[in-house]
Amino acid sequence: MTKHAPDLASAVREIAAEMKEKRDRGEVASYIPELACVDTGKFGIAVVDADGEVTAAGDCDEPFSIQSISKVFTLTLALGKVGDRLWRVVGREPSGSPFNSIVQLERERGIPRNPFINAGAIVVTDQILSGHQPREALGEILRFMQFLANDDSISIDEHVAASEQRTGFRNVALTNYMKSFGVIENPVEYTLGVYFHHCAIAMSCRQLAMAGQFLAHLGRNPITGHSVVQPERARRINSIMMMCGHYDGSGEFAYRVGLPGKSGVGGGILAVAPGKASVAVWAPGLDANGNSHLGRIALEALTRRMGWSVFGA
Amino acid sequence: MTKHAPDLASAVREIAAEMKEKRDRGEVASYIPELACVDTGKFGIAVVDADGEVTAAGDCDEPFSIQSISKVFTLTLALGKVGDRLWRVVGREPSGSPFNSIVQLERERGIPRNPFINAGAIVVTDQILSGHQPREALGEILRFMQFLANDDSISIDEHVAASEQRTGFRNVALTNYMKSFGVIENPVEYTLGVYFHHCAIAMSCRQLAMAGQFLAHLGRNPITGHSVVQPERARRINSIMMMCGHYDGSGEFAYRVGLPGKSGVGGGILAVAPGKASVAVWAPGLDANGNSHLGRIALEALTRRMGWSVFGA
Amino acid sequence: MTKHAPDLASAVREIAAEMKEKRDRGEVASYIPELACVDTGKFGIAVVDADGEVTAAGDCDEPFSIQSISKVFTLTLALGKVGDRLWRVVGREPSGSPFNSIVQLERERGIPRNPFINAGAIVVTDQILSGHQPREALGEILRFMQFLANDDSISIDEHVAASEQRTGFRNVALTNYMKSFGVIENPVEYTLGVYFHHCAIAMSCRQLAMAGQFLAHLGRNPITGHSVVQPERARRINSIMMMCGHYDGSGEFAYRVGLPGKSGVGGGILAVAPGKASVAVWAPGLDANGNSHLGRIALEALTRRMGWSVFGA
Amino acid sequence: MTKHAPDLASAVREIAAEMKEKRDRGEVASYIPELACVDTGKFGIAVVDADGEVTAAGDCDEPFSIQSISKVFTLTLALGKVGDRLWRVVGREPSGSPFNSIVQLERERGIPRNPFINAGAIVVTDQILSGHQPREALGEILRFMQFLANDDSISIDEHVAASEQRTGFRNVALTNYMKSFGVIENPVEYTLGVYFHHCAIAMSCRQLAMAGQFLAHLGRNPITGHSVVQPERARRINSIMMMCGHYDGSGEFAYRVGLPGKSGVGGGILAVAPGKASVAVWAPGLDANGNSHLGRIALEALTRRMGWSVFGA
Repeated sequence: MTKHAPDLASAVREIAAEMKEKRDRGEVASYIPELACVDTGKFGIAVVDADGEVTAAGDCDEPFSIQSISKVFTLTLALGKVGDRLWRVVGREPSGSPFNSIVQLERERGIPRNPFINAGAIVVTDQILSGHQPREALGEILRFMQFLANDDSISIDEHVAASEQRTGFRNVALTNYMKSFGVIENPVEYTLGVYFHHCAIAMSCRQLAMAGQFLAHLGRNPITGHSVVQPERARRINSIMMMCGHYDGSGEFAYRVGLPGKSGVGGGILAVAPGKASVAVWAPGLDANGNSHLGRIALEALTRRMGWSVFGA
Repeated sequence: MTKHAPDLASAVREIAAEMKEKRDRGEVASYIPELACVDTGKFGIAVVDADGEVTAAGDCDEPFSIQSISKVFTLTLALGKVGDRLWRVVGREPSGSPFNSIVQLERERGIPRNPFINAGAIVVTDQILSGHQPREALGEILRFMQFLANDDSISIDEHVAASEQRTGFRNVALTNYMKSFGVIENPVEYTLGVYFHHCAIAMSCRQLAMAGQFLAHLGRNPITGHSVVQPERARRINSIMMMCGHYDGSGEFAYRVGLPGKSGVGGGILAVAPGKASVAVWAPGLDANGNSHLGRIALEALTRRMGWSVFGA
Repeated sequence: MTKHAPDLASAVREIAAEMKEKRDRGEVASYIPELACVDTGKFGIAVVDADGEVTAAGDCDEPFSIQSISKVFTLTLALGKVGDRLWRVVGREPSGSPFNSIVQLERERGIPRNPFINAGAIVVTDQILSGHQPREALGEILRFMQFLANDDSISIDEHVAASEQRTGFRNVALTNYMKSFGVIENPVEYTLGVYFHHCAIAMSCRQLAMAGQFLAHLGRNPITGHSVVQPERARRINSIMMMCGHYDGSGEFAYRVGLPGKSGVGGGILAVAPGKASVAVWAPGLDANGNSHLGRIALEALTRRMGWSVFGA
Repeated sequence: MTKHAPDLASAVREIAAEMKEKRDRGEVASYIPELACVDTGKFGIAVVDADGEVTAAGDCDEPFSIQSISKVFTLTLALGKVGDRLWRVVGREPSGSPFNSIVQLERERGIPRNPFINAGAIVVTDQILSGHQPREALGEILRFMQFLANDDSISIDEHVAASEQRTGFRNVALTNYMKSFGVIENPVEYTLGVYFHHCAIAMSCRQLAMAGQFLAHLGRNPITGHSVVQPERARRINSIMMMCGHYDGSGEFAYRVGLPGKSGVGGGILAVAPGKASVAVWAPGLDANGNSHLGRIALEALTRRMGWSVFGA
């Protein structure tokens, strides 16, 4: 029994209880119709510590749309396939702009700032797709998620995927725009088909925290013992999560939470306490930057109680 | 004798030797005439570990113009004076723009993105100045530096200050621009006078690493035993260094070095390994983003050898 | 016999001869493959005076792709259909940006600056299309051109249309982007299908100068006697041509030529000397702003010789 | 007696009466304190026809601050001094941005888009100043105005100049910004001193319409018989007025009024009907673009009644 295990259990339980009571819960994303009807009363949290033990509370087993959190995993997959050549078509600097801005693309000739804004994640998907059929690429991404979470039941919510495909005009715009600069290699509808579908993967906090373990432990999943990536690569993915994981609210997340993290417009956040834990929270209401409002508050409380900030403990 | 002390000593010595040999050394800043003549052959490094022991090599005792590194200390001082009210006049998000961009200011009504781009640091200086004469404010900043480094010999290089004051048209532009939005409280020439002078503080790597200790140790200087700021504030300043410390190269620094750090156009970088060390390097040649070229390479090598990255060790 | 008729004939003849000799002829547009192979040696000019008499020279009877010159006629048609309601979805200010910029759209929530940049012309086409099949809308546009030029032989170059449809990723981006703001009413592929086709209308200088007559004569074609639009509307369309007809080179065209005009990337320019003449020139080589290089020079020479500048004669 | 003289007299009289009655009169500029207290009830108009006859009504003899209208005359003066070399430091394209935007300057390395936005006019003033004392340059500008208007009583309102000099932080920002690119030759305070003072010249509508005559008549003042500039230059200045004379409302002015014109934030507009008349109106209330609200409406009514639009009559 590790020294802080009792702390963690009560911290998780108390934070979950506190979040359930909060009045100000943010607003659900309205631009994806299928997500607009999710209950903002939901709150889930799951923490996997260094021994692989899971501490969870609230709606921790209810699947939700992971949306942009999938970008962490597609980045990992793409780096595995094309290595550092990936950085020829996408940067790794914070953008200073909202998640779907097109302005930066015009100035920088179609090269997105980082893999976690929409344009950058679409480029990453395009790199995974290269030379394959959309169905194959999507299958590969899904199997990778199942492998990481050690759970074959993870699947794609086709209603959400279809909803985005019907309404995602801005993503179609971004992709065609990059295509006009030669940055996108595959047909736009192929790349976007895969992108919309991997964003529509549904996972619970528990599954997500499991999948994130390799980032907390130098590339290795301590439960399965699988080595997913080299230590250097795990650190580097964490650095990109820290710098760019919350769009134009990345500075705020670093300031308040002090961990690498990636949010999704479905209300989830995956956070990584290097050497200590992989954490997933879910609260569907969003703040003005499109990040989970209560998710961030819960992570701030957890990090403070556990002394997990990478900026000093 | 701690376990890694020998490691650190040889790491520092070897890195310093290696850096002295490098051919590609970057370019000195040309826009401040007084800095344009600094010898790019210089390289210094100093590390203060958790026990307050200093390991140093190369030109580690030669004072250089700390320039924007001073912004870390003025931020600390301003937070001490006005607390979180500071955040009403400056943000804490990466800017996605070069250090002296004025574009973001137009879009966001004169509120700079963060305290480490020029505009933001000028606002911070303006807050320190408030209600005082420039001479007093400057004296306070200098005494704070001397107190942090525990060294009364630290002084301002008046030639550098005068050089900037003669040629810093863009900073005059930024300040007047913010003044037009009501963000600057004092007369422009007062605020800029203090700003140009604190940027012209000259320190050696050894002095700088000493001064940075409180950030590595939850606000407390382990040598003097002085508590400079609360632990929470130290963490938060580190987070801002991580997110914004290298202008438009902040993502690159996080990706390669993995530590909070702040660069100056004089070629210095102060980096913080929380709980472990305060590090200062100096190499006058700059990269395209205005950050020390060899300084960053040296820190990358050091962090890797010592396993100091905050993103996993 | 009008006093200056002889002048005009010799002016046109001499200018055409002079243009044929020019060495520096600009570059053909490369982004539409089908246009990239047009011979830059071509030069045509046709002037229709107030009596409906045509003076022409050079390759004045060779059809070329009118491209963006079609925007003058679709604007006229759209104003006829929806009147001033058109201005709810498109502005009438110069954009200060290149013809295919997307930046302005982000700042102004999907409303293009004017009907003569690509985004604006696409919105205009979308308004013409409303409630019809693409085939019908396109037929209407083509018949309008034939009616204006009094020439049923005018047709669409399907190769050019297909070439643009295959490669026009940026226009697809612009249209989807506007659609994301609700500015585009029809399916993107319908609107763009019509747009790409009307840009691919092929006309000779003679036909184009005939079609432009109503703009020179307060809305009335002096040859056919047909009233196309009210005088006020003709003046207003001319004003938009003056302000926005040459993208980011509109100021230059006004400064040098002094007439309302609209250029196309196929190398054509339609210019209007109010009360005096309708002029079409064609020279396929373009300048840096995407406007016909020799076309502008020829019009400058013609205007000066004839004293046609609207800014003083 | 010319045919339309009676028409003009009644048009001017009726328009003046109508404007006096208008309820919606716009808002006075608030950013120059001295201008904020001008009575929005004022309305003046003066027209000088081709015979040099003046038709005037309302507050046509009350001096007001001509502000940016002075830019037409400093442009004329600068072209006389440095000729086309002027275009090395300022462009002649519409800016697509508000009058005091700094964004465009960053993108285009300190070269303002045109001589009629603030930055451009400051560059023009800097060119006039070159090699002289501010006092001399200002004297030269004032004497030029007196010469053009044939009226030695024209003077500078020192209160307005002082008011701008105290509060014009944004103009100080623009000037220092351009200086950082090497575009400004003289000390910033010299150039701005002259700029603020020539903007503070006070003139009545009658004086202003007199001064504008050379632009309506190919560079020659028909009353005094003086040739001010060559015909070509008069046309070109008119073209710049048309394209850029009303900041981000230039398209609107061309669309509605159809004449080259230049507005000032004091509520004045100078408009030129080539070959026909020079017109000045004054109504202090401004629209959202900073142009005289009733001034534009009055000019639209006048142009329509007189058939003076350059876009067709």
